[in-house]
Formats: sequence, C-alpha cells, structure tokens
Amino acid sequence: MKKLINDPVDVVSEALRGMAAAHPELRVDLPERIVFRGDAPVRGKVGLVSGGGSGHEPMHGGFVGPGMLDAACAGEVFTSPVPDQMLAATVGVDGGAGVLHIVKNYTGDVMNFEMAAELAAAEGVEVVPVVTNDDVAVQDSLYTAGRRGVGVTVLLEKLAGAAAEEGRHLAAVAEVARRVNETGRSMGMALTSCTVPSAGQPTFDLPEDEIEIGVGIHGEPGRRRVPAAPAREVAEMLVEPILADLDFTGSDGVLAFVNGMGGTPLLELYLMYGEVASILEKSGVRVARSLVGPYITSLEMAGCSVTLLRLDDELLRLWDAPVRTPGLRWGV
Amino acid sequence: MKKLINDPVDVVSEALRGMAAAHPELRVDLPERIVFRGDAPVRGKVGLVSGGGSGHEPMHGGFVGPGMLDAACAGEVFTSPVPDQMLAATVGVDGGAGVLHIVKNYTGDVMNFEMAAELAAAEGVEVVPVVTNDDVAVQDSLYTAGRRGVGVTVLLEKLAGAAAEEGRHLAAVAEVARRVNETGRSMGMALTSCTVPSAGQPTFDLPEDEIEIGVGIHGEPGRRRVPAAPAREVAEMLVEPILADLDFTGSDGVLAFVNGMGGTPLLELYLMYGEVASILEKSGVRVARSLVGPYITSLEMAGCSVTLLRLDDELLRLWDAPVRTPGLRWGV
Repeated sequence: MKKLINDPVDVVSEALRGMAAAHPELRVDLPERIVFRGDAPVRGKVGLVSGGGSGHEPMHGGFVGPGMLDAACAGEVFTSPVPDQMLAATVGVDGGAGVLHIVKNYTGDVMNFEMAAELAAAEGVEVVPVVTNDDVAVQDSLYTAGRRGVGVTVLLEKLAGAAAEEGRHLAAVAEVARRVNETGRSMGMALTSCTVPSAGQPTFDLPEDEIEIGVGIHGEPGRRRVPAAPAREVAEMLVEPILADLDFTGSDGVLAFVNGMGGTPLLELYLMYGEVASILEKSGVRVARSLVGPYITSLEMAGCSVTLLRLDDELLRLWDAPVRTPGLRWGV
Repeated sequence: MKKLINDPVDVVSEALRGMAAAHPELRVDLPERIVFRGDAPVRGKVGLVSGGGSGHEPMHGGFVGPGMLDAACAGEVFTSPVPDQMLAATVGVDGGAGVLHIVKNYTGDVMNFEMAAELAAAEGVEVVPVVTNDDVAVQDSLYTAGRRGVGVTVLLEKLAGAAAEEGRHLAAVAEVARRVNETGRSMGMALTSCTVPSAGQPTFDLPEDEIEIGVGIHGEPGRRRVPAAPAREVAEMLVEPILADLDFTGSDGVLAFVNGMGGTPLLELYLMYGEVASILEKSGVRVARSLVGPYITSLEMAGCSVTLLRLDDELLRLWDAPVRTPGLRWGV
C-alpha cells in the first residue's frame, strides 16, 4: 500500500486539518470532526446536515457552504460517524427553522442519525431525516438493508440546499429531498479495488481481466463480474438497469451524472459520458443538465457510476441556483 | 491495462465527443480537436490559446470559458497537437486584439506553437507566446530542454485569462503571463506510473516500496527514487527545493496549489495540503490563496505536485475574478 499519508490512524483528522487550512471560509471542528459553514447557524434557515464514512471525498465535507450543506460529519474511512458528532452538528446549524438530516442508506449511518435525531429533539431541535437509496444494483448488501444510497446523495444535497437557501420551511425542504431520491437512480462499476489505510490490503480482489458491475462505494459486491469490456458496453450495463427501474422519458429532461470512483481520470469519464449520452438519446431520454467528475468516490478505486435524475421546472431552477462549496461551485 | 475506453486509437476523439455533449456552453471542433469558448471570437478581447498532449485533464480543454482560455488544442495522449490545429484555434479566437499562446516547455509543443504563430502572422493575426517552465525538479528532461512547464500553467491560464477579460492589450496580458511564470515554481512526485492507452504498458516501473521525487507529468524521470515515505516527508521533499529556488517570503503572500496527478484521492491531497501549509508557516511564507485538487494530471498516475506562486495586489484581484470553465469556476 503506497499512499500520501502518515500513520493510517491519523488519516481523517489530518485530512480535515488540511481542509481547514485550505478553506478559511469553512469552520472545521477538528476534535468533533465536523465541517461547518463559516457562518453557521444561519438564523431562520433550515439547516442541512449530512455525513458518513470518509473516503468518498469531496462528499460530504466538500459540499458544505452556502447553497448546499450547513455541516458534514466525517467518520473514519468507510465507517459511520457517531451520534454525538451528528448531534453536535445538528445543534450547531440549527438557526431556529429545524434541521434536515441527509442519510445514505447504510445500516450504521441510518441507526446513528436516528439516535442523533432523538437526542436533538430532546434538546428542542426539530429534525426531519431523508434517506437516499438510489442504487439499483442490489436489493440488500454488505452494509445495507434495501438499496444503497449513492450518487443521488450529491444531487440531493445541492437541490435541498438551494431550497433551504430560498428560505423554505423544513417540511418543504424535506419534500424536495424526498422527491429527488424518488426520481433518481444510480448504478456503479469498478475496474479495481481500493485499499482502506487501516486495513493495508485491497478491500476485494478483482483479476486483471475482470470488472465488477454494480459495485458499492465501499467495494461491496455488485451484481456480477464480467470480463473487461469496452466503454460502450460498460455504459450499457450501467444505464439499462437504471432505465428499466424508472421511466426517464418525458418530464423536463434529466440530469445525467457520470461520477468517477476516485482513480479514474477525467479523460475516461468524459469518454463514458459520451457513451451514456448516446444511449440516452437512442432511448428517447432528453438530457437537460449534466455533471461529470469525481464527486462521490471510493478512495482510489478505478471505475465510475451513472446517476439519472428526473428534472422538473423547480428542480432545474434549484440546480442552477448559486452554490459555493469546495466541491461544487457556481454563481458566487 | 483496464480502462474505460473503447479502441485506444479513439480515446481522445471520444473524450472530446463526451465533452461536447456535457458542455453545450462550449463549441468543440471534433475533426480539428479544438475546444472553443461558445462565443469565440470575442470582439476586441485578446484571445488565449493553449493546448498540449491529452491525458492531463482538466487541463487544457477544461479551462476553456469566460475568464480563462478561448481555445485549447488536444493532441494525442502525451503528444503535442500539430501546428494546423493551433493555427485554426488562433484564427478562430482572434477578435482583432491578437492572441496569446500559452505553451508548456516541451520540445514538441514549443516547436509546433512557434510554427503556428508564424502561420497566423502570415494570416495577419498578431501572436505573442509565453512558455511556462516552472518545474524545479530537473534542468533538462526526456522531452524538454530547460525546465518543464507544469502546475504554474493552470494558474497562468486563470490569471492571464482574467487580464484579457478586463480588456487589456496583448502586451499587457503577456506581461501578466510572464510575471506568473517567473514567480511560480513547482515540484511533483509519483507513487505509481500511468499507462498510455496506445502503449498498453506502464510508462515506467516503480517498485511497490519506492516513490519518484521530481517526476514529470508524462512520467519522465525525476531527481531520485526514494523509499516510500510518510506524507510529511514527501511534502518536505517537494516544498524545500521550491523554497530554495525562489524567495516566497514577503510579498502579498502566495497561492499554494496542491495538485493531484490523477489517481490520488482528494482525502490524501487535503492531507498533503495540511503538511505543505505547516512547512510554509514554519518557513515564514504566508498563504493568501489555495487550490487543492486534480487540475494538471497524468492519466491515472498516483502522486501529487506542489506549486507556489508569489502574489501581489494585482494577481490577487485577477485570481478572484469570475471564471466559468468546466474545471475551474466561481463568480458566475
């Protein structure tokens, strides 16, 4: 294992120290491992809190800032943050309008966010949770009952963040968040495994001539292993299950998101986007917006995922609204 | 070699097709392999043209847009574009105020851009070239006489782009560009090699327990190979030669840029940024701005580079000016 780290046990805290140094516009609570908006809590605005295991950067800490999250809790690599962290984040961003918890559907995250919500309620903070479960690959998985939450989480954090920034009430922000999860679907694949620093060994073995279709963002098994295939076939293996799961024709078009798993260069992601766009065109799905790049990653895993989200007038407007975070920024 | 590609010979053109699909605000000339600003040529504005071998994305095509480049020419992977491409880009962005060529110091690029400038002059377009050579690692290299052009190129494209956007004359934009190159220095390192698709084999061999200090962005040899080391020692091996080459104390602070080579996750890049920031603080160098992420890459190579740039009031203002490109965006 060669990595740009010091002691494996310090990876997360040292990366957060670097984030704090690089982003003075954020406030990083190093002992609690929480990334806050610099001006949190914003009075009268619904607060958005997310979090999860580290190793998926820029998600979630890189999505903190005006127009997106108010705080993100960082767990150890691929390990849920603890309820106390989530509680501190929730209380810290409550500007009097309540707090939305954005939770990816993994057993540990769901359980800990539930506990944090109860603790916050006891302190008088209203919390509404929304759980993402957009991964069509598998029904249950290594760390999940039901579908896993993956790429839609990124889009949801942007869209619900924009709704909160407009001054909407907690129920309205939560409605946007649930709609995004309900109308978004994802599927991923891996060319290689990744290595969790504290483990020191690849999470799984993948022969040089095979790829894993439907892989999870922690290297959880997918649907099947197939021989390494050209990008256009890989694109079909990702897009077809998504289109089979939900009708993406009609509507005001889709947001097409080709995500890098961490180790795959942008050159290949754009090439994949071209293949995905071709399939969508042939399938009568109109693309209204796109996003290409590594946004929800699995350390240095090579591979990609595809996420489609049905858009409507309101979601389009919320997508285009200004956002200012380390990982996603426009308009400001 | 496992990659998200189809036929290796089609990688660049298929990636450009994907870019065209993902970025309708750009105009991609697929036969000529040029990425243009959608509104090029901009009347009365100095045009900025860069380009080089592919495989360094988002540089250069991802830096095309208002506030940065007007056009970028894509060569084959790690291979210079040809003079005819550069000529078409130059003529295509000339809004009557002349064109700046931003050229990384590699023999093929320098020669071809020189030829293109002569051809453009024959067509009545005034061209001023600026060559970047900020890499302190080695004096001459596999593809270079003199120092190589690396990370400063990204910063220069932003800063000169902002100067052009303000309506300055060609000589004034070129002066900004030269100043950036003169006051910026870089050094890179690799944990792993990368594989050029058409070669199918890693560019170089690097044992599991060694790293290459001073590596070039095409995998050219660096200063030395050393045993794999903790991030804080790697940071010293990169920052010390930079500080030994140019005085970065005083001035209005520096822009500190920790760049990912392509295969290294953001978690590690932020950790490295923390180490770099510590060294700079101890060395009396004040950081005024920072940039962390994969901006000038070498396919899927794991590793990073550090670039420091001396800032002054004017460069600070130009850095903060709005920019709207796929790879770098703020303010619009």
